[in-house]
Amino acid sequence: MSTTTPTARIFSSDNAAGTSPEIIEAVARAASGHAMPYGADDSTAAVRRRLGDIFECEVDVLLVSTGSAANALSLAALTPPWGSVLCHRDSHINNDECGAPEFYTAGAKLVPLGGDDAKIDPRELRAAGRHKAGDVHSVEPSVVSVTQATETGAVYTLDEIRTLGSIAEDAGLRLHMDGARFAGAVASLGRTPAELTWRAGVDLLSFGATKNGTMTADAIVVFDRSLTAELAFRAKRAGQLASKMRFHAAQLDAYLTDDLWLHNATHANAMAARLQEGLKGIPEVGLLGAADANILFCRLPQQVTEGLLADGYAFYHDRWEPGVVRFVTSFATTPQDVDHLLQAVSRHAA
Amino acid sequence: MSTTTPTARIFSSDNAAGTSPEIIEAVARAASGHAMPYGADDSTAAVRRRLGDIFECEVDVLLVSTGSAANALSLAALTPPWGSVLCHRDSHINNDECGAPEFYTAGAKLVPLGGDDAKIDPRELRAAGRHKAGDVHSVEPSVVSVTQATETGAVYTLDEIRTLGSIAEDAGLRLHMDGARFAGAVASLGRTPAELTWRAGVDLLSFGATKNGTMTADAIVVFDRSLTAELAFRAKRAGQLASKMRFHAAQLDAYLTDDLWLHNATHANAMAARLQEGLKGIPEVGLLGAADANILFCRLPQQVTEGLLADGYAFYHDRWEPGVVRFVTSFATTPQDVDHLLQAVSRHAA
Amino acid sequence: MSTTTPTARIFSSDNAAGTSPEIIEAVARAASGHAMPYGADDSTAAVRRRLGDIFECEVDVLLVSTGSAANALSLAALTPPWGSVLCHRDSHINNDECGAPEFYTAGAKLVPLGGDDAKIDPRELRAAGRHKAGDVHSVEPSVVSVTQATETGAVYTLDEIRTLGSIAEDAGLRLHMDGARFAGAVASLGRTPAELTWRAGVDLLSFGATKNGTMTADAIVVFDRSLTAELAFRAKRAGQLASKMRFHAAQLDAYLTDDLWLHNATHANAMAARLQEGLKGIPEVGLLGAADANILFCRLPQQVTEGLLADGYAFYHDRWEPGVVRFVTSFATTPQDVDHLLQAVSRHAA
Amino acid sequence: MSTTTPTARIFSSDNAAGTSPEIIEAVARAASGHAMPYGADDSTAAVRRRLGDIFECEVDVLLVSTGSAANALSLAALTPPWGSVLCHRDSHINNDECGAPEFYTAGAKLVPLGGDDAKIDPRELRAAGRHKAGDVHSVEPSVVSVTQATETGAVYTLDEIRTLGSIAEDAGLRLHMDGARFAGAVASLGRTPAELTWRAGVDLLSFGATKNGTMTADAIVVFDRSLTAELAFRAKRAGQLASKMRFHAAQLDAYLTDDLWLHNATHANAMAARLQEGLKGIPEVGLLGAADANILFCRLPQQVTEGLLADGYAFYHDRWEPGVVRFVTSFATTPQDVDHLLQAVSRHAA
Repeated sequence: MSTTTPTARIFSSDNAAGTSPEIIEAVARAASGHAMPYGADDSTAAVRRRLGDIFECEVDVLLVSTGSAANALSLAALTPPWGSVLCHRDSHINNDECGAPEFYTAGAKLVPLGGDDAKIDPRELRAAGRHKAGDVHSVEPSVVSVTQATETGAVYTLDEIRTLGSIAEDAGLRLHMDGARFAGAVASLGRTPAELTWRAGVDLLSFGATKNGTMTADAIVVFDRSLTAELAFRAKRAGQLASKMRFHAAQLDAYLTDDLWLHNATHANAMAARLQEGLKGIPEVGLLGAADANILFCRLPQQVTEGLLADGYAFYHDRWEPGVVRFVTSFATTPQDVDHLLQAVSRHAA
Repeated sequence: MSTTTPTARIFSSDNAAGTSPEIIEAVARAASGHAMPYGADDSTAAVRRRLGDIFECEVDVLLVSTGSAANALSLAALTPPWGSVLCHRDSHINNDECGAPEFYTAGAKLVPLGGDDAKIDPRELRAAGRHKAGDVHSVEPSVVSVTQATETGAVYTLDEIRTLGSIAEDAGLRLHMDGARFAGAVASLGRTPAELTWRAGVDLLSFGATKNGTMTADAIVVFDRSLTAELAFRAKRAGQLASKMRFHAAQLDAYLTDDLWLHNATHANAMAARLQEGLKGIPEVGLLGAADANILFCRLPQQVTEGLLADGYAFYHDRWEPGVVRFVTSFATTPQDVDHLLQAVSRHAA
Repeated sequence: MSTTTPTARIFSSDNAAGTSPEIIEAVARAASGHAMPYGADDSTAAVRRRLGDIFECEVDVLLVSTGSAANALSLAALTPPWGSVLCHRDSHINNDECGAPEFYTAGAKLVPLGGDDAKIDPRELRAAGRHKAGDVHSVEPSVVSVTQATETGAVYTLDEIRTLGSIAEDAGLRLHMDGARFAGAVASLGRTPAELTWRAGVDLLSFGATKNGTMTADAIVVFDRSLTAELAFRAKRAGQLASKMRFHAAQLDAYLTDDLWLHNATHANAMAARLQEGLKGIPEVGLLGAADANILFCRLPQQVTEGLLADGYAFYHDRWEPGVVRFVTSFATTPQDVDHLLQAVSRHAA
Repeated sequence: MSTTTPTARIFSSDNAAGTSPEIIEAVARAASGHAMPYGADDSTAAVRRRLGDIFECEVDVLLVSTGSAANALSLAALTPPWGSVLCHRDSHINNDECGAPEFYTAGAKLVPLGGDDAKIDPRELRAAGRHKAGDVHSVEPSVVSVTQATETGAVYTLDEIRTLGSIAEDAGLRLHMDGARFAGAVASLGRTPAELTWRAGVDLLSFGATKNGTMTADAIVVFDRSLTAELAFRAKRAGQLASKMRFHAAQLDAYLTDDLWLHNATHANAMAARLQEGLKGIPEVGLLGAADANILFCRLPQQVTEGLLADGYAFYHDRWEPGVVRFVTSFATTPQDVDHLLQAVSRHAA
């Protein structure tokens, strides 16, 4: 598949998109001249200030190269090796990171919990959070990891986050948020980043920039700053302390400037809504679950799936159950891209 | 320190440089359009082909975000947890990676060896390679790691590499090359990349692009392709499988096009030679060791060191022993930068 | 609780029993004189020969101090860190070893499967064994671990073991058996140890001696002898290579002599059968599940449970679900112990 | 080699000895009756009380199966994975445990220091303790491990221990003592166990029972009791929580009763002194270094070494340098054993 297509037909993931022009420009500006390495440069400091403003508090920041690294480093700082990570059974950390959390934590155990729309069921969390606590025969419940927005495209409401945060606090558990699509959740909820994170008890946030516009940079936002020193050692040791850090920082700096991160997410969400709206009008299509952000699940007749694939569309299908399809939009998806897809679905459904 | 300075005064490391214009242009081209993630894009395939051409053999390639990750992943694939990594006591993996090799290998032991100019002494390697081999009370000698060029700026000759490779082969040890400054070594020696690596027994090479022109991308060149599958799992698990891999690939692709990598290294070496030549003419300066590539050690009177620091120059001093200073040039160092530095040294020495 | 009680009232686990007289005598014999350390003694060699005879093939043997160590070492030799261990959700390795498998394997993932009587459901194994195999985003299915007898006291039949072994082989998975109560299974089934293990595909067996008569010694029986060298390094590194190995060996040697291991297990099973038979005659008691070996689950009225506890009986209750009780017999349980327990149950039920 | 020999000729290590009769008797007593598992038995509680008395303070105790496990568990509780363990280059943890500390600590780095008689040189410790502290590019100095008595049979004086303890405290380092031959050191110095450990700053002590009379049991004495909970999880996870803990405890209980541990050590030391005294009278023998405890190094003519080997004597020779021999005595060495050895040396030297 060519790296550029006249009409984008990749709806498999938001990571198929490129990057925002503002970000490329910032990187190009960073390219000339010399700068101190390993984060001792101006841009890295600027990113920290910007995130402090956005989250309305003093934060520390670690810039890393992938969301998996952000998650695994965060979890390693929040659980001992004999601890457990309570997470949804459908979560990315549980299914899609090849055991990165287990590697970084030196062998902690992920305990999968249930719940609709890939949201952790509070009752299950309450039970798991106390399960054999203090019993040396069992791993020790240590940290909860919530994904915002979830793998199915649902968004935890502020009340839901607060409920989980409160259960975690009562049980003495730390709270991590995998914000791979955090911007989409903020855009969807109309709540402040502070409310949705540290004010609800989040200790560490994987900020989640790559899927929403940056190239190769992500960030851990450290609300519990007593963890910063440990995280810095862990990041270096994990090969995540970039020597030319300014190139990670330039991406994030531009991403956070003039609300680009929120504009991108709002656009991606709008494209998913447009798609959802269009699909509603096609009787052969069955919409599934919440599409609060930029992910949409639906049921398609087999001929439609096959037709779309033959057209060159890329998307996941028949992975969850037969006939179920997932479409993901991004900041780079255009209304035309969505409309073309809708026309194709209609054509094959007919 | 500003990210751009009219006259560059950072000689502390080649990682203070920015990136080559060709590389920024390639990244900008990659920014638009959609591409398949995780390395299933055209640019990643192109990088593999280019490296195959350069090394005159079929290779596999893993693109990672730092040289530390390249080293640690390579070593993890070449030693069991109960193995030992034989390396020079001054090597980067031993001193400057915060135990990344120990982390990635699940606790292998680095065994430091001696040798002039930070090159491994063949006699020490011969002894260490057989030390308690097969004895369960001791870690098992498993892999040799050589740094080319070395931490002191020396370059292993082809004969020296072959000697170490031969000792490794006789002892049943695998061979890793930390090529953080591999381009500089190739430029210095006038030998082919193939001769200096797999033909001498190297199994895995950390290619070392960041210090010589890329932004945030490095590569493992896999000569022993039986290791590729394992490396792919290890990289994912380490948070080193970038979703938007094309942005790593675009950097490497440009870096390898039209011999940019060699031009950059040749230039950096020439700047170090110009500096060396200039310092020879200043009687108060004592040159130290080999400066085969882009690193130069010398002894400066204290007033000179202090004067340079007061001028805003950045460089390491008094770290190895009192009075000893290290200057590092890069692809971005200009003849004017060097001449300004020489003038400053002369002025303070007078 | 005193270490000796006139009438034994501990039915909580077979690990509450002491050791067989023959074993103490053997240890006492080993106590005088000098012997070569680390397993280079006569007794250790004898244990290997005896296990070879019992399993009708050449085997290697590692003597370790606990069953958890036997399991974790075995799994570490059968899966890479990025692999998964397919096991029953109720298995000891999944619930009761505080993540020992995760620690020894450097972070492999235990994937819990369902099935009645704590036996792995073959259909679930078939699905899990191929789940995302070869996909670097997921842990790689690597090894199946079956527990014989199971945590609920059921015993896999020969056919059942063969079925799981065959599925494992088809999927390219290794096969580990946690034989914590292997002797009880052999005694129950009337099949040869060979049939139940390597002839059905088992690569490594945790032999499981402690619960059935030894003091502090257990054994890994190595059928796939290509794993022996690796296991020896791993055991040393885990602090499991005893210097005075002869004291582990003396226990096992006596345990294997004149079928003591089978006599002990046969007796323990008979005591559970006697208990089961007696409970059948008490209408207030509801028997649950298979009691093929020395573990018996039943449902007791609350007043009975409370009465037994007040009498000084020790057993697990209300752990699985309210009203459910587990009794475990051992080689040291006497018919009088069982009869006293039955009388107590009757008395409290009345 | 038979496990019993009429005249003991094994001087290779104190781990070739059997066990004290008092210990076997205690184990035999523990063999009958039932007891609560995992350390909830009377003997385990008794061991803790006895060690509290001996060390004149409240302590916690973990019973483990080997000295390597005691060392590795202790170090894991005293250093983060990115930390370093400062130890003598000749120490057992550095050379003879196959990387057990690296395994248990999840990849910490052992930094070898020099010093005569295998004692850490205080100046080297002072330098290493501050080396790159707080620098994320380097492992973080975290814990000092001293071996008492040392690998060459020397004993740190009280002043020497205090000096190292004081340096550790100043640098913010934790202090571990590998007391594999701690009893010998106490017997040699005539100082109290308290003075030699926690009063000098020791946080955790590997008590070292196996070489001096127990069979398969060792202990960690926890002076910094804030570490106990973590150690308990780590021990279980390492397969070091014995189900029938009473059998470890019975060994230690007898070992600590009526000063058996000190009597055994005093005897072993006396046997080494007798051997030293005798060797002084043989002019062909050159005594080497301090023999403060039960280890003695000397230089033997080759014909003597060969003659002794031909007689069936077992000892290490030509391992440190040609002609150098090590003899180790134990609680089980008799004066006759020593005299026979001396006669044999004389005979072969003639």
